[in-house]
Amino acid sequence: MSFTLPPYTPPDFSRSPLCDAPPATFREVVQAGVAPEDYHATSVYPEYFHLGGGKWRIPRESRMDCVAVIREDGQLDVKEFRRLRKGDRVAVGRRENGEDGIYVHTEGFRFPEHASEKFAFRTRLTRETSFSIDYDELYELMEHEKENGFLVWVLGPALVFDHDARQAFAALVQAGYVNGLLAGNALAAHDVEGALFGTALGQEIYSKDIRPLGHYHHLDAINRVRQVGSLERAIEQGVVRDGVMRALVRNGIPYVLAGSIRDDGPLPEVFGDVYEAQDRMRNVVRQATTVVALATQLHSIATGNMTPSYRVMDDGQVRPVYFYTVDMSEFAVNKLANRGSLTARSVLTNVQDFVVTVERGLRRRSPRATPE
Amino acid sequence: MSFTLPPYTPPDFSRSPLCDAPPATFREVVQAGVAPEDYHATSVYPEYFHLGGGKWRIPRESRMDCVAVIREDGQLDVKEFRRLRKGDRVAVGRRENGEDGIYVHTEGFRFPEHASEKFAFRTRLTRETSFSIDYDELYELMEHEKENGFLVWVLGPALVFDHDARQAFAALVQAGYVNGLLAGNALAAHDVEGALFGTALGQEIYSKDIRPLGHYHHLDAINRVRQVGSLERAIEQGVVRDGVMRALVRNGIPYVLAGSIRDDGPLPEVFGDVYEAQDRMRNVVRQATTVVALATQLHSIATGNMTPSYRVMDDGQVRPVYFYTVDMSEFAVNKLANRGSLTARSVLTNVQDFVVTVERGLRRRSPRATPE
Amino acid sequence: MSFTLPPYTPPDFSRSPLCDAPPATFREVVQAGVAPEDYHATSVYPEYFHLGGGKWRIPRESRMDCVAVIREDGQLDVKEFRRLRKGDRVAVGRRENGEDGIYVHTEGFRFPEHASEKFAFRTRLTRETSFSIDYDELYELMEHEKENGFLVWVLGPALVFDHDARQAFAALVQAGYVNGLLAGNALAAHDVEGALFGTALGQEIYSKDIRPLGHYHHLDAINRVRQVGSLERAIEQGVVRDGVMRALVRNGIPYVLAGSIRDDGPLPEVFGDVYEAQDRMRNVVRQATTVVALATQLHSIATGNMTPSYRVMDDGQVRPVYFYTVDMSEFAVNKLANRGSLTARSVLTNVQDFVVTVERGLRRRSPRATPE
Amino acid sequence: MSFTLPPYTPPDFSRSPLCDAPPATFREVVQAGVAPEDYHATSVYPEYFHLGGGKWRIPRESRMDCVAVIREDGQLDVKEFRRLRKGDRVAVGRRENGEDGIYVHTEGFRFPEHASEKFAFRTRLTRETSFSIDYDELYELMEHEKENGFLVWVLGPALVFDHDARQAFAALVQAGYVNGLLAGNALAAHDVEGALFGTALGQEIYSKDIRPLGHYHHLDAINRVRQVGSLERAIEQGVVRDGVMRALVRNGIPYVLAGSIRDDGPLPEVFGDVYEAQDRMRNVVRQATTVVALATQLHSIATGNMTPSYRVMDDGQVRPVYFYTVDMSEFAVNKLANRGSLTARSVLTNVQDFVVTVERGLRRRSPRATPE
Repeated sequence: MSFTLPPYTPPDFSRSPLCDAPPATFREVVQAGVAPEDYHATSVYPEYFHLGGGKWRIPRESRMDCVAVIREDGQLDVKEFRRLRKGDRVAVGRRENGEDGIYVHTEGFRFPEHASEKFAFRTRLTRETSFSIDYDELYELMEHEKENGFLVWVLGPALVFDHDARQAFAALVQAGYVNGLLAGNALAAHDVEGALFGTALGQEIYSKDIRPLGHYHHLDAINRVRQVGSLERAIEQGVVRDGVMRALVRNGIPYVLAGSIRDDGPLPEVFGDVYEAQDRMRNVVRQATTVVALATQLHSIATGNMTPSYRVMDDGQVRPVYFYTVDMSEFAVNKLANRGSLTARSVLTNVQDFVVTVERGLRRRSPRATPE
Repeated sequence: MSFTLPPYTPPDFSRSPLCDAPPATFREVVQAGVAPEDYHATSVYPEYFHLGGGKWRIPRESRMDCVAVIREDGQLDVKEFRRLRKGDRVAVGRRENGEDGIYVHTEGFRFPEHASEKFAFRTRLTRETSFSIDYDELYELMEHEKENGFLVWVLGPALVFDHDARQAFAALVQAGYVNGLLAGNALAAHDVEGALFGTALGQEIYSKDIRPLGHYHHLDAINRVRQVGSLERAIEQGVVRDGVMRALVRNGIPYVLAGSIRDDGPLPEVFGDVYEAQDRMRNVVRQATTVVALATQLHSIATGNMTPSYRVMDDGQVRPVYFYTVDMSEFAVNKLANRGSLTARSVLTNVQDFVVTVERGLRRRSPRATPE
Repeated sequence: MSFTLPPYTPPDFSRSPLCDAPPATFREVVQAGVAPEDYHATSVYPEYFHLGGGKWRIPRESRMDCVAVIREDGQLDVKEFRRLRKGDRVAVGRRENGEDGIYVHTEGFRFPEHASEKFAFRTRLTRETSFSIDYDELYELMEHEKENGFLVWVLGPALVFDHDARQAFAALVQAGYVNGLLAGNALAAHDVEGALFGTALGQEIYSKDIRPLGHYHHLDAINRVRQVGSLERAIEQGVVRDGVMRALVRNGIPYVLAGSIRDDGPLPEVFGDVYEAQDRMRNVVRQATTVVALATQLHSIATGNMTPSYRVMDDGQVRPVYFYTVDMSEFAVNKLANRGSLTARSVLTNVQDFVVTVERGLRRRSPRATPE
Repeated sequence: MSFTLPPYTPPDFSRSPLCDAPPATFREVVQAGVAPEDYHATSVYPEYFHLGGGKWRIPRESRMDCVAVIREDGQLDVKEFRRLRKGDRVAVGRRENGEDGIYVHTEGFRFPEHASEKFAFRTRLTRETSFSIDYDELYELMEHEKENGFLVWVLGPALVFDHDARQAFAALVQAGYVNGLLAGNALAAHDVEGALFGTALGQEIYSKDIRPLGHYHHLDAINRVRQVGSLERAIEQGVVRDGVMRALVRNGIPYVLAGSIRDDGPLPEVFGDVYEAQDRMRNVVRQATTVVALATQLHSIATGNMTPSYRVMDDGQVRPVYFYTVDMSEFAVNKLANRGSLTARSVLTNVQDFVVTVERGLRRRSPRATPE
């Protein structure tokens, strides 16, 4: 069975009350970085702005908790507050039903319905939920996206703490299932540590032996890369001979390493300014059709914040953006939901097993040449 | 590479202070179920009792938190307090270094040493610990035990909540990797529910759909088995056509279903008296050389309590008993450790993935006929 | 502000479709312990059975996952399957809307409504949910129940692992806020250990020092009580001089200690047969108007299974039964919800802090003589 | 009982092998931000560098994973790699026993010993560990530090999600128990949201009601502060009338708000460059004698990284720096330990309860005027 996208039904603007909606109002920014009174904040859903005369427009690249700025040509940019410039014209009005010329469309995609019961068990997602189907659906989705979409992965450092998982992820890159990566300094630093010393924070990633003076390893790895000048150069020069970052660089996959206050180093490619990092991350996410976030609350929530539930394709079609999170705790999953990422699907397990299982599962379905 | 057991070095009884140790003292039980003053309580370690004249004896079948009772023939039974009968002669003395004629031998097995560091990261087991080697070692161990040992599994009900995991475990039974099973009413009841309705607590174990009136399913499953008279008969009669319990029954694998206050039903095979259940469980555990406990605190801790760190084989050789726990939380793992199960190895992941991965891993290593 | 119970609105049986409902059908049990085909299983909600002529009856003491048995006098007993006797007449029919003469009433209590939003954050309960109001509401509820209701507590052993929490709970008993207690062997055994040795599993409950040979303490405590013959006698004789169990016994509070396969000992008062334990527990729960379950999955779920969402008071009034769970993990809370205990309120915190805070909070509101 | 600092015993440099140790070697940085070969990396422990002639020097302000740079005057700066400038002279050598002129002193403080047992339960910290003594010791420590030390708090946003906890923390500031604060944009933004709207992410922090259009609240709060120009001005002008940030500002307490990729806004005071934020944080931590980190992995680990286990006071005395973490999960606690923060003490509970309990506990011990 192959994957098909669920159809999207736009709102019917010819019917009341939308046919009677006034045009949306846009108000000028008078102070850079500050939205005008009564600004409309975006959500994860498709939103339509009435430009008058029954012409409604959806922003091509949305995200929640931003404002909609209208361009000269009538296109709508969805902008973070900090990026607002004096003179930007921002949509105002907070009624979401069209009365302010703005319509938030929560029912565009038809996902299968579930029967409603007066009394039912097991309505909540926990570690005891069945996940067999999620793997099978993910395989189909990933095969579809490999040909037709854009797969963005968000990784916490734990992935490279384990030998098999690190190798499996590199194989996924090699096999074309990774179109973009978002991570932090630690992921890259410990990946390089793995390449140089076979360890993560001084512990061997296969045998788990604590190595003598192993607490130097990640510092040595970072120091070495800083000496060479960049991670990319360290890969080119053969200093870094395996791992996730090398697979990305050699396959030309875009990645963003965002800085955080936990960082040692950092590696030269890391963005120390987190708002610049956000902009870079969003540039990757703009293209995303599926996002898979593994074992990182910080990066998962950051990416969740900037990932809309839909994307307008080049042909104008609207399709869903899938967002998966994989984590060990119900807390992490619920926290993401509490931040508004309503459409996320979650698998509760160790990401090490998840990545190894996904890589093997995809390979079983479409055997490929062994990765280098 | 194939698995080899670590060698066991018995204490050297010819050297001081053990060569000078007095014989152990045994005191009579005067009140059934009550140990005499100053009784010696067993630990998870091999323990030796001096019977006089330099003759030291180790109980063949030990467990912690019990007392040692000497038989007429000089053999030592390790008995729960509740099983003490008037006249039983119980070893007394609490010094563990031989001064009371009792020696607790904590250093019998030589496991590989780890270098000691003044300062090291990653000394604690968490979900971010690497587990690649644990899978590989477990494969080797299981293959060894299949031929030479006795593999006991302890299962929480979550295993049968997932389609693939339920099937994978049945395949492990079929392939000979299960020599005994300890579980509760819920595991068996939802396994039967899966066989009859394809659900667990009314939720489909593959599609996750909540079925109309699904909250009847586990009750109907239990009621049906009670009507037939026993689980074994329900399997024979073809009422139960797949799953874990059927695989066990058809392969003649011993199992114990222990009752708990959470139970609906229960199924006829369940032991309502928990102390009788303990006795039955221990009869299985006595033979165990490896125990793998999945996703159940109650049964894992109960089994941990009665599993010694070693076993005396028929030829008198002492070998370690391996104890694995698989759970999602550091808490569960530490709780087991806090109960004295010091030798447990833990994998922090979802048991669904664990069982599926182990079954596939073993099959890749030694391909076998597809399970029926 | 004082607490008032939410009003209960019974179904309007004079309106369609209920006014046209047929009488419920009752079918005889032909095999002890086995329900007849098409039996109706109870839920947590109030349920009404049409006895004909527009006369609907609600069972006074319900619980989920049981069947309704009609007595000679028209009263309805809600019985566990295992308690069914030949000849019992069991309600059959699974339509919950009256068409089978049975009506499941999910909307009887009017709890305050929450506004519905197209897009909102924080819809899920996590450790980051605010709990200030829960404490304040609980104080009011407990003060109300102390005068008008019946407060049942369900305790895991962790409560007596901590000095202040153990003392605080004893003070709650003393002050009249505990009308019944459900727990296991471990709670009582470690409470006695605390009284005799000041430790829990050998660790001091205040200083946390690990005591030499402390692993004997709980065994010694149990052995001592077994020697005396019963916990109650050990308390009378001054063997046990403080703690939770002593407070209960001296205040004549009913309690049930249910056995489990984890038990050492057990203490003489423990019910080894878990189904007898269930019956005893339900006898306490029948009277409950509020249940507070602390830090035990096993006992919380067991109690949740047998606690309906309502209770019919002696004057025929229907009132809600409040069910609180306190636990550290979202998993435990969701697991309970997945078992159908829909009406539970949860506080995510350490029960040690919870009990200490509740005891201090109640004392601040109504100062009382210092507990002995 | 009042608190006394444990005495510190410096190494005995007059004895072998230290008396025979060579002087430490310092090598010049030739490339800015890159340490020379064989650099010595600092740990959390006191470390001594031999400057020749038996003169050993300890850096006054250390932290782990940095290098020691010698100044003209012989003082030692402990510097992050990124702060290294060409010409800086960095200590080299990785032997920690003096053979390279460097001695890592792990045994300087005498903390009470715990008896060692062959077999003991409860050796691991879990949620079931007793915490009564930790509260009592913390009260004494905080009272001592209020007069003699410097208390730094590290806060996750969850603290201001709860009405009572937010108020309790403000009261702690008011009462003098907070000398510095490290947090992120979210803590401050939701604190302001609480002041303006009584909500956090749109949910009321007392009643938990989800407010209509509440998802605007934090954005409105941030936008308002950005409009005013700064948080401090918003507090001065009475826009922000209560909460944690106002208490800090009005009491002149230094704070650092570090940016992260999760941020909305951000508030004007937030440092967008995380490495500048690190420098600012460390400037606060340099003075710290006790750090208490609540419910934030990101900030806790970042602060843990830069907090040494000791501090050299102005009079040259060496005293321990206490580091407490409070979190709900064993994972968080172990993760911190795995990052080398070996000396952290942990309380496993909800920070809401923790802060409320600590504030009440301190007030009970030394009643004070009600906070404004």
